[in-house]
Amino acid sequence: MQLESEQLARVLAVAPVARLASVGADGAPHVVPIVFVAVDGVLYSPIDGKPKRGTDLQRLRNVARRPDVSLVIDRYEADWRRLWWVRIDAAAQAVTGADLSSAVWNGVIAALRGKYPQYASVPLFDGVPTLLRMTPHRHAAWSAQMLDWETLDWGDLA
Amino acid sequence: MQLESEQLARVLAVAPVARLASVGADGAPHVVPIVFVAVDGVLYSPIDGKPKRGTDLQRLRNVARRPDVSLVIDRYEADWRRLWWVRIDAAAQAVTGADLSSAVWNGVIAALRGKYPQYASVPLFDGVPTLLRMTPHRHAAWSAQMLDWETLDWGDLA
Repeated sequence: MQLESEQLARVLAVAPVARLASVGADGAPHVVPIVFVAVDGVLYSPIDGKPKRGTDLQRLRNVARRPDVSLVIDRYEADWRRLWWVRIDAAAQAVTGADLSSAVWNGVIAALRGKYPQYASVPLFDGVPTLLRMTPHRHAAWSAQMLDWETLDWGDLA
Repeated sequence: MQLESEQLARVLAVAPVARLASVGADGAPHVVPIVFVAVDGVLYSPIDGKPKRGTDLQRLRNVARRPDVSLVIDRYEADWRRLWWVRIDAAAQAVTGADLSSAVWNGVIAALRGKYPQYASVPLFDGVPTLLRMTPHRHAAWSAQMLDWETLDWGDLA
């Protein structure tokens, strides 16, 4: 199933977490949870607001070698009639402030601080401010039953 | 961080969902949410209890070509002090009843029905009963703060 762009934008705006898969030097997959924002259809994830540095290095090494990533956004529910997921295939690249216009960089930082009030007490970056920029080229979506994607809510976890 | 086997067993027992990454013919990653059980340290995920057949075929094609998979188990919380994840790298293989002893097959089916009461009303299989069997060879774990993994709970979603 394909979502309309407004529907996809809604999912990206309300979902606080995605699981990001990349591929290692040995060709094996690697998957981690990430926080992210979407700005003008491009996804950005900070490296690193939370202390899991080793994993972030793995992720960065992987995308430097092979930019293909796959993200799944879903929320598990005990009521399986409410299950849904959206998978996004994207090209990823680590970027710093030098790689983006200051308008784009500042827009992304503002979007991260807006989506995640946690950044009021957790440092947004650890070391050189770096973002993983992910440009989607394909998506697929599924829901167990008809879902009004444009009013999708994340409830208490947002 | 490495978990003790009892801690890892607890995580696998209480987590109702994992996100599974595999690698496609083009070398790009592919990630989907799955339900699963762990029996004697081996993970099993049914193909397919929920109607997302196209995706399951993708997953099966991928592991037939390249058995390496990576699973992440985590639960997002708005309180980031409560965040944790466990990543498991495994070798995956699709199996049917003909590939396993009936004791093992029946044990897995009983474990799935025990962990997921939803299977009382949702068919466990669609078509030839098939399981994705995943034999872990490595794991990594992380938590934002000290966590008593052996008493980890999933709350309302289990």
